[in-house]
Amino acid sequence: MNRQDLKHFLGGVARAIPRTTRWPLSTWGLTRNAGGELKRGGVALGGLLERYRSPLYVLDQARLDGNAARFLATPPGCARGAEPYYSYKTNPVPRVLQRLHLQGVGAEVASPYELWLALELGVPPSAIVFDAPAKTPDAVALAIDRGVGLINLNGRGEIALVAELARARHKRPRVGLRVVVPGGRAGQFGERIETGAALEAFREARARPELDVVGLHSHVNGEISTSAGLEALVTPMLAFTERLRRELGLELEVLDFGGNLACPTVARLPARALRLAVTFGREPDPRPPEAVLTIEDYLAQLISRVERHATARGVARPRIFLEPGRAMTSDTMMLLTRVLSVRGRDDAGATWAILDAGINVAEPVPHEYHHLLAVAPRSAETQRYRLTGPSCTMGDLLYPAWELPELAAGDALAIMDTGAYFVPLSTCFSFARPAIVSVHDGQVEELRRAETFEDLVARDQLAPPRVKEPRRSWPAARVDLRH
Amino acid sequence: MNRQDLKHFLGGVARAIPRTTRWPLSTWGLTRNAGGELKRGGVALGGLLERYRSPLYVLDQARLDGNAARFLATPPGCARGAEPYYSYKTNPVPRVLQRLHLQGVGAEVASPYELWLALELGVPPSAIVFDAPAKTPDAVALAIDRGVGLINLNGRGEIALVAELARARHKRPRVGLRVVVPGGRAGQFGERIETGAALEAFREARARPELDVVGLHSHVNGEISTSAGLEALVTPMLAFTERLRRELGLELEVLDFGGNLACPTVARLPARALRLAVTFGREPDPRPPEAVLTIEDYLAQLISRVERHATARGVARPRIFLEPGRAMTSDTMMLLTRVLSVRGRDDAGATWAILDAGINVAEPVPHEYHHLLAVAPRSAETQRYRLTGPSCTMGDLLYPAWELPELAAGDALAIMDTGAYFVPLSTCFSFARPAIVSVHDGQVEELRRAETFEDLVARDQLAPPRVKEPRRSWPAARVDLRH
Repeated sequence: MNRQDLKHFLGGVARAIPRTTRWPLSTWGLTRNAGGELKRGGVALGGLLERYRSPLYVLDQARLDGNAARFLATPPGCARGAEPYYSYKTNPVPRVLQRLHLQGVGAEVASPYELWLALELGVPPSAIVFDAPAKTPDAVALAIDRGVGLINLNGRGEIALVAELARARHKRPRVGLRVVVPGGRAGQFGERIETGAALEAFREARARPELDVVGLHSHVNGEISTSAGLEALVTPMLAFTERLRRELGLELEVLDFGGNLACPTVARLPARALRLAVTFGREPDPRPPEAVLTIEDYLAQLISRVERHATARGVARPRIFLEPGRAMTSDTMMLLTRVLSVRGRDDAGATWAILDAGINVAEPVPHEYHHLLAVAPRSAETQRYRLTGPSCTMGDLLYPAWELPELAAGDALAIMDTGAYFVPLSTCFSFARPAIVSVHDGQVEELRRAETFEDLVARDQLAPPRVKEPRRSWPAARVDLRH
Repeated sequence: MNRQDLKHFLGGVARAIPRTTRWPLSTWGLTRNAGGELKRGGVALGGLLERYRSPLYVLDQARLDGNAARFLATPPGCARGAEPYYSYKTNPVPRVLQRLHLQGVGAEVASPYELWLALELGVPPSAIVFDAPAKTPDAVALAIDRGVGLINLNGRGEIALVAELARARHKRPRVGLRVVVPGGRAGQFGERIETGAALEAFREARARPELDVVGLHSHVNGEISTSAGLEALVTPMLAFTERLRRELGLELEVLDFGGNLACPTVARLPARALRLAVTFGREPDPRPPEAVLTIEDYLAQLISRVERHATARGVARPRIFLEPGRAMTSDTMMLLTRVLSVRGRDDAGATWAILDAGINVAEPVPHEYHHLLAVAPRSAETQRYRLTGPSCTMGDLLYPAWELPELAAGDALAIMDTGAYFVPLSTCFSFARPAIVSVHDGQVEELRRAETFEDLVARDQLAPPRVKEPRRSWPAARVDLRH
């Protein structure tokens, strides 16, 4: 058997392995109308592209409200809930943020721009948490002046900066300190508990009367998808609060457990799944639903653990801050795109389709699992497609293998779970950026208009005289050769 | 020896391996003034950051003019030179494009936006080549109406589209056909020569009287860095022109060899180099200078090959179109950035420094070699740094290992060769995008102003009423717990 035949044979085997799971449409509150067309929030999706052009980000407002409510709920048996601060960097669309704030979610900001945006949107400063690996003096000064609820210092290096700015302003900002739990990767973040650096940082911060040291802050590396993963963060954080109490007499008001909770329907694609998809055309499997903590289970486990700990030690239950990003908004948005053209089958038996959305607006898709649906399927039978974006580069391969009903130019597809890291990582690579609309109760509202070509050069100084005819005279050369 | 010790030991070994090459400052026309500060185009770089804020893209106009002249030159012994069409997607900054056009370089556009931009900049339509894997009817119609010099059809699927639009307009557009040479990867591009599909596509296009079939177009996969790599494209293209002549009686006016010529000072980092840098702190080696074809050698080899082929067959020497991107502009820009903060050494003995430029404005850096220089070194001795960007994510690691003089907050660094795929792949991830200036003969000119916070929400519909106080009363809760 030659290499090509072997590939075909193995490809057949790989494709014949049944999918272990398949998310139903109800996962996203999707339905199909009588004609088979997808609907969300009471709105038929095909029509949206006619009205707002393709591609188009679509927010499901009810789901956004629902996720906010889930994060704000008090788990059964717990005294109080947690306080979620939405990670602005995940999806900084003002109307999305405003909606979350209206529900009672705070703002977690990680740059001068995000701090400005939260204040501009009218978020009460007390409902803002300011994180960042390296804060600029201007941003810290603004945070102090406005009375931001919590400034999480990234490490000892930021203590003097914040203390001196506070002193000059006769203010006493509320600060937390970011730590790295034993075994965790530090990178550019935090002070290690196991080396003693974290304790020293607290000691140093407490020695500055200008600082009101109220919080302990940590994140895990990667994502939290299981109880064990959550435990690996919570247990050492609680143990460290004991040391702070014992050695520094510090009773913390706030435990900030950061973000990183997974979205069940999204997952980083393992290298093996990618190889199978590229080489053998095998569609990647989604993560099994039971593999990921729900928001409810996450909160119940986390809060009850903290409350038990406080009760056992006879101390006040600290406030629990969370900084959800992905878990709050991933599944609240989708990206609608149209097929631009369909090409013949390639050597591996897959048909290529070129979409009007590529890595420019869907950066995470090549390396994350994102479900893909036909908006108005032409048939029940499916075939295997390779789907690329519109840009003129081979790297614009979104889905190396996906089963879809037969496609033709103009057909619409829905890329699911695009509410985290799609909009902020979008680029203007060859194309302007799309509009964002929300759907709710059959109503459509434009949250952000599509970028125009003029927008793309609005910051440019154009040379006053237009470009002259190039030195080389193409038309003349052309004539020479044609006759 | 435990794992940690072993890592330290091996790290020492890895670091002790001397660098095989090191580019001198003159590579980029850089000098240092008496105080040791870097200068380019007669401008001291430190002062630029004061005036235009950091980070900042800086274009060396003389080098841009120089690269254009190099691509336009006729190699010794050749009858004529090639016709370069700059790949707009590589760096679509109007003033950069205008400068290239003034020198006589044409425009290679790959999207409706890029076509619009070229026309807006006053590029004569005859000096525009329109490529794209899936062209939209509107863009094709515009290209036909304006008389674009060459429309390269991506495959058979585009023949009918272009022919029908042409017929409706009573025009006869000049078209080429993109092919894939034997052994090449097709992906979403072109028709294969080896399956006969390419010949069939030409036959079909020639049968449409509305189309003036003048060109043959191909690209290699990846980059062209050696004579052998160029030969692997040119030989089968020339052989295919013979088949077209023989079987269809078609004498081509244009051979379009696409882009992909490497920039000598930039290279994709091999996985091994990345592992050594991350794990052992070993600074990656640049590609040896002699490993990459110069623009001159590339042109000489390509053009003489085509001319010999024409002479041998007694036919007119076809026009040679090129679509350089990286080779034209990579080394004409750099990105200046400042150190925001410096952290202590980590377990592997590297000191962490956080810069104000990260993957948001330097997307290629984590996976490509880009030289890095201190703008005003504090000492001749160096130490090993890990350099990250400012965003609140571990993934924002730009340089896992780089030797630099001692750094302190505020120090400026220059990331070299940022003239290809930096600006178009930049994002608004937590930060606004920087300004672009040019330096030339001691003069500085702003080509694109920095983005403002207001710009970032200019397309957003803000809800008329500001967000109300969140439902949960943070300040009250705070008071409860603090006393």
